[in-house]
Amino acid sequence: MQGDTENLAGKTGGILARLRKERPLVHNITNYVVMNFTANALLAIGASPVMAHALEEVEEMVSMAGALVLNIGTLSHEWIQSMLMAGNRAGKQDIPVVLDPVGAGATSLRTRTAREIVRQGWVSLIRGNASEIMSLGPDIVQTKGVDATHSVQEAEQSALALARELETIVAITGPTDVVTDGRRIFRVQNGHPLMGRITGTGCAASALCAAFSAVEQDMLYAAVSALAFFGLAGERAGEKANVPGSFHVALLDALYLLTSEELTAQARIEEVYV
Amino acid sequence: MQGDTENLAGKTGGILARLRKERPLVHNITNYVVMNFTANALLAIGASPVMAHALEEVEEMVSMAGALVLNIGTLSHEWIQSMLMAGNRAGKQDIPVVLDPVGAGATSLRTRTAREIVRQGWVSLIRGNASEIMSLGPDIVQTKGVDATHSVQEAEQSALALARELETIVAITGPTDVVTDGRRIFRVQNGHPLMGRITGTGCAASALCAAFSAVEQDMLYAAVSALAFFGLAGERAGEKANVPGSFHVALLDALYLLTSEELTAQARIEEVYV
Amino acid sequence: MQGDTENLAGKTGGILARLRKERPLVHNITNYVVMNFTANALLAIGASPVMAHALEEVEEMVSMAGALVLNIGTLSHEWIQSMLMAGNRAGKQDIPVVLDPVGAGATSLRTRTAREIVRQGWVSLIRGNASEIMSLGPDIVQTKGVDATHSVQEAEQSALALARELETIVAITGPTDVVTDGRRIFRVQNGHPLMGRITGTGCAASALCAAFSAVEQDMLYAAVSALAFFGLAGERAGEKANVPGSFHVALLDALYLLTSEELTAQARIEEVYV
Repeated sequence: MQGDTENLAGKTGGILARLRKERPLVHNITNYVVMNFTANALLAIGASPVMAHALEEVEEMVSMAGALVLNIGTLSHEWIQSMLMAGNRAGKQDIPVVLDPVGAGATSLRTRTAREIVRQGWVSLIRGNASEIMSLGPDIVQTKGVDATHSVQEAEQSALALARELETIVAITGPTDVVTDGRRIFRVQNGHPLMGRITGTGCAASALCAAFSAVEQDMLYAAVSALAFFGLAGERAGEKANVPGSFHVALLDALYLLTSEELTAQARIEEVYV
Repeated sequence: MQGDTENLAGKTGGILARLRKERPLVHNITNYVVMNFTANALLAIGASPVMAHALEEVEEMVSMAGALVLNIGTLSHEWIQSMLMAGNRAGKQDIPVVLDPVGAGATSLRTRTAREIVRQGWVSLIRGNASEIMSLGPDIVQTKGVDATHSVQEAEQSALALARELETIVAITGPTDVVTDGRRIFRVQNGHPLMGRITGTGCAASALCAAFSAVEQDMLYAAVSALAFFGLAGERAGEKANVPGSFHVALLDALYLLTSEELTAQARIEEVYV
Repeated sequence: MQGDTENLAGKTGGILARLRKERPLVHNITNYVVMNFTANALLAIGASPVMAHALEEVEEMVSMAGALVLNIGTLSHEWIQSMLMAGNRAGKQDIPVVLDPVGAGATSLRTRTAREIVRQGWVSLIRGNASEIMSLGPDIVQTKGVDATHSVQEAEQSALALARELETIVAITGPTDVVTDGRRIFRVQNGHPLMGRITGTGCAASALCAAFSAVEQDMLYAAVSALAFFGLAGERAGEKANVPGSFHVALLDALYLLTSEELTAQARIEEVYV
């Protein structure tokens, strides 16, 4: 790490420390599969999660929150309306919004919905796997279910173009995470292969990005820090367990245990000069 | 513990023993985040959980149940109708109903819904944190998300007044749990701080109160026993694990392992003379 | 094991090996309680789970899948439409469909819905406990919640008759699992009592049957293999843990660890000559 990157690595621990002190409320409109794991991950790092999707309450709820997560897995018509309503309110109040386009590219409903949300102009960060992110770009690509079938390298240019076009931060996670605001690109090398063998790690990564953004105005730094932190927690969990059930438990433990100092020292972040 | 309280501590184990023998069916209309944990907690103690919310079946389902749980987290319009319908049927059949007003005070939808349910007259027990309970009283207080921001002590008088006004049992859980029927107040000191760092412990506490009430007619005793039992399980889990992922697993284990004799001996219940 | 049965036991490992190589996409329209556990179980064995229920996308999603699971726990009107739509499309594309009639017999909505789905003619396998399966036969039996109250032996004749009447495979799981196509009956003896003390094991068994059927055209063999595999994983988990929280974790670990060779060697399958 050099130059600005060194500064960024140095900042990660400070953002985490603020998060644990301020315990921001993170409002999640997310899919049924991962709600429990997402709430537990947010609690483990020290944030305060809330899940609410009713049209009658999403505006009121988000206006109290430090950040909003919109996750389109297990989508339905009513939930799309809730996401748009909550996002619009968040946009008006400058509350950061993280979009997780789960399965975009797999079905036209998901691709269309993700694109519609992005078009509103208040999305601060889009975090997905390579296939999902590529499906939001000009070239529509059909993907298999919710799995990534493209390499991070293939999608990097798409992310850069998309970030520029939409003036938002884009994060592609995978063996290497890539985060870009359309000008700078950071790669995060922290992580563990078993993170792909339990459900909800991508969704939790999005929620952690939201939690970090609630205490760090620079969304690029917030996302890079959150992903380094989550990847590092995965590495710690991998030291405890090499099978998915136990890994899942160890991952929540690591999210709770990892200190700001450890994050600063062990975050593996590098800037890619474009 | 003295007098009646001693009798109550002595009764706790007996209620648990009956629960494990009778395996009551507990019907839950609850939020998406905690459904899995709630079902596993009920199974671990020896009850038989069922989740059902369709208008077409809630009356039929609840009429077979030993108790009903209404939990307003992740609320929506249709679910409110289901809750009212199931509760009305339970009321007609003298099946105990536990209301968990998750997030009451945080949004008007939740406060309004909790109040509407309470007004029906068939709620046997309301269990929430201090903020949620206080929001059901005459002085509406805005709370932050689903977290408690008031001390148990502050809310004790509200609980007492609310229990008197509504002629129902009220339980406020926190570092110390308080249960009152408007005449007597019991404090339960069992518990562990990590219970606040995993999602669904409050909701599980409500479900356990329901399970205990299915085998113990006196709801005050049922609730006090259930909360002592749950808190004691938390203490046991805390001896095994000091991090949330592992604690979560150990908590389910403890719910399964704790015996009636241990509950009777280690329940820390005291009556507060008002 | 003798004759054809020996061949079948020999085949189980091969089916598992193909599953891990091909990583089939399994589309689940399932209940809220078990979504997370089902997804994790499918990931642990090497399959690729997706959950999707919106009318706007179920046809598109299922057409990409190797198998479809329809699980009627936590049913509602809209979800029934989605199940029928997804099933119809699966039927047209010869994609296997597994029906899990959770709580059939407990409420008329569930019994009626399970019967309606079965009547469509595209269900490849029905997997339930004895009560649920018996409720689909000519003699309607009221059951208590979602628990089985009949012995496998009592239900065996029902399964046989039902399989013949509907020309589908029927699997009844319990201490002994029974699988029949109306001509042959197999019993699977693998399993562990704690599988009944955590939620979602029945639902996961259905999902594993679907995953196996995505790589094995003979649904009878696929279901017998999947149930032997799942039961064997339960046995392994039981060697690690004798309490439900820890057992849950160990079960996911075992699903990941069990090899094809172990399955072939330790599957306890016997054919019952009718």
